[in-house]
Amino acid sequence: MTVQPEFELYSFWRTSATYRVRVALNLKGLTARERDVDLIKGEQRDPEFLKLSPMGAIPALVEPGHPAMTQSTAILEYLDEIAPEPPLLPADPRGRARVRSIAAMLAADTHPLITPRVRGYLTKEAGFDDAAWKRWQIQWFTTGLQAVEARLAAEAETGDFCHGDRVTLADICLASIPAVMKIFAIEVADIPTIDRIMARCEAIEAFAAADPYRQAGAPSR
Amino acid sequence: MTVQPEFELYSFWRTSATYRVRVALNLKGLTARERDVDLIKGEQRDPEFLKLSPMGAIPALVEPGHPAMTQSTAILEYLDEIAPEPPLLPADPRGRARVRSIAAMLAADTHPLITPRVRGYLTKEAGFDDAAWKRWQIQWFTTGLQAVEARLAAEAETGDFCHGDRVTLADICLASIPAVMKIFAIEVADIPTIDRIMARCEAIEAFAAADPYRQAGAPSR
Repeated sequence: MTVQPEFELYSFWRTSATYRVRVALNLKGLTARERDVDLIKGEQRDPEFLKLSPMGAIPALVEPGHPAMTQSTAILEYLDEIAPEPPLLPADPRGRARVRSIAAMLAADTHPLITPRVRGYLTKEAGFDDAAWKRWQIQWFTTGLQAVEARLAAEAETGDFCHGDRVTLADICLASIPAVMKIFAIEVADIPTIDRIMARCEAIEAFAAADPYRQAGAPSR
Repeated sequence: MTVQPEFELYSFWRTSATYRVRVALNLKGLTARERDVDLIKGEQRDPEFLKLSPMGAIPALVEPGHPAMTQSTAILEYLDEIAPEPPLLPADPRGRARVRSIAAMLAADTHPLITPRVRGYLTKEAGFDDAAWKRWQIQWFTTGLQAVEARLAAEAETGDFCHGDRVTLADICLASIPAVMKIFAIEVADIPTIDRIMARCEAIEAFAAADPYRQAGAPSR
């Protein structure tokens, strides 16, 4: 692919799912013009945005003349198909299944539990205050990361990264969790394999440049 | 593939994620010996099972001599790779992105919210009784299905099924939601496109045979 599409990425500085797409774009050498959807102001419920993303969820990746693409894992697979280098999935089906499984443990079984719409419901319907919400966040970040740690520590396929010695979708989805945990001042203990892999990822500019605090609209730390 | 692996599927009669794998196996003409993990008895927290699936989640698909595969969407992609007919993804990258996105709206943004581990937390820590849990289920089933309905009704790619006139991963993940809603006597109104597609799916034996009430261990209706 010599000329990339003129991507627009509907995004917000601090969201985990947008972070994943930013990392993949960076790794592939692709660029996207970001369009801010302020989740704190509730702009994701704007009728115009809901036409792009009926779930009111970001990211949404738009190419001129085509419907918006939503859901970070679907977007990552798409970017890997249209710009195959460097590959974000292993070559063998079992390896791909392992990478997609680790990615889903985080992007499906962990992150959807701590989104603004869930917070809104628990605040309104279950009386969650800030402390109860933080306990909820800690519960699911811990559950997800400890389960992934158990796999990474036990499975022979783990290398410098989650799967061997190259970055895959699993590393991108994994890094998207601590990237937002630090915003909420949450830490999970006893995950040495994850900590080791995260240090490797943070040293890669494609990851570092996607850091929430380096995005437009982020507060100074 | 002339000889299929001797799959074992760790499963439970009523789970949405296991249903998806059953449908895919059926569509591909593959078989798996099911091994029951009784989620009501808490067998998913058995130490032996946690070695296979550290998240304590089913399904897990096991081939002799290989680590267990977990996460339904990763398993579906794997089955589609090792047994390509009939294909469960469209041939074009944008079509695949759309199918994976619809699948993720249900398998990632909807279903993880209504799993036993979430119910356990809300019961213990937030005082949810049966009625509060049912309102929670209704909230997220409705949110997910209405968002998918909005897409299916608006987007030109929708056909007899979610994407054109062939079954894809999107239909399998979509059908996995009403398949369990009926167990909890939950209905979502005003989703005519989904209702139309579900009627098509139910007429296909690969879907009908995966119905929770047709599995070993299911109560009689």
